[in-house]
Amino acid sequence: MSCVVTFTIFPLEREDEGSFAPHVAQALQIIKDSGLPYELGSMGTVMEGDYDEIMAVIKACHDAMRAGCGRVYMTMAVDSKAGDGGRMIRKVESVEELLK
Amino acid sequence: MSCVVTFTIFPLEREDEGSFAPHVAQALQIIKDSGLPYELGSMGTVMEGDYDEIMAVIKACHDAMRAGCGRVYMTMAVDSKAGDGGRMIRKVESVEELLK
Amino acid sequence: MSCVVTFTIFPLEREDEGSFAPHVAQALQIIKDSGLPYELGSMGTVMEGDYDEIMAVIKACHDAMRAGCGRVYMTMAVDSKAGDGGRMIRKVESVEELLK
Amino acid sequence: MSCVVTFTIFPLEREDEGSFAPHVAQALQIIKDSGLPYELGSMGTVMEGDYDEIMAVIKACHDAMRAGCGRVYMTMAVDSKAGDGGRMIRKVESVEELLK
Repeated sequence: MSCVVTFTIFPLEREDEGSFAPHVAQALQIIKDSGLPYELGSMGTVMEGDYDEIMAVIKACHDAMRAGCGRVYMTMAVDSKAGDGGRMIRKVESVEELLK
Repeated sequence: MSCVVTFTIFPLEREDEGSFAPHVAQALQIIKDSGLPYELGSMGTVMEGDYDEIMAVIKACHDAMRAGCGRVYMTMAVDSKAGDGGRMIRKVESVEELLK
Repeated sequence: MSCVVTFTIFPLEREDEGSFAPHVAQALQIIKDSGLPYELGSMGTVMEGDYDEIMAVIKACHDAMRAGCGRVYMTMAVDSKAGDGGRMIRKVESVEELLK
Repeated sequence: MSCVVTFTIFPLEREDEGSFAPHVAQALQIIKDSGLPYELGSMGTVMEGDYDEIMAVIKACHDAMRAGCGRVYMTMAVDSKAGDGGRMIRKVESVEELLK
């Protein structure tokens, strides 16, 4: 099984002001430390792995942000498919090959 | 802590054709049996509970659908806030009170 | 053509504090005044109509909120299908009929 | 104003089978031809521009896919902010600078 997941998290209530970058960086550090393949984008981070692996990482991101912020918003989309991994890269390649 | 979550799930590959309703009903039966407060809508189902309770229900929905479909897509948005529950109802009421 | 759309909008930067309800109510008033069928939920509002009708309403909500807030976040999911309208209700009914 | 938008589109009903890549490639070609800065990812494409520019491109993607598919699903998230563009790149850089 391969799950490719795009994940976004940010605080809705917090003590500090300004950029969300420190909060997002905290979550990304957790993702990076997990060892899962990931790709940071400007609207979310994509990961690939088993369902449980990814959900454990997302829970750790949630808990870490909620420890410092009274209210947190997060969204995810999951593409879960039978078969081999490596889809995070192959999905992009298969589209790029078709472009003029 | 109260998590209000909107959740959508449907197959991207399947043996049958036509309406998604049987697949969505299978997921909704799992949500209903969980005992969590929920509201079925035309674009997703909203639930409220602890983070772990909700994620266990969503995993059960995912696993049940993947057992019958080679590829599944799901999305969710989570509003996680310190304090009491009952927000699934209060959030709607607080907006309706402000409408003319 | 029938588009069923779930739509969520809230400020990421604003002058006031506390509840998002006044900001959400402003958007909902615009949706209500549009005359489109809609359903307010705790994680978003569902509308049904032609693609252009709905996108005009969403743009009005965006512009109104951005007039008072330096940064706005919005999400939507669109289910666009050939054929008759009335799907906002039928989609829910067809699932409920299958529940035990 | 700068809008950074992540956008996903795929068919729910179609004549062909198998990979979504040809359908996604059709949408990506429209995005590419628009001249807007974009980044193709495995779960969606991010664009940056004015609100109206981006929504015109998304409508063109929707209309092109619906011309060949009876039912289409699309999601987007919009981060709309006062001030200069270039945020699609800066948002990622500001997080990467904070990582160990």
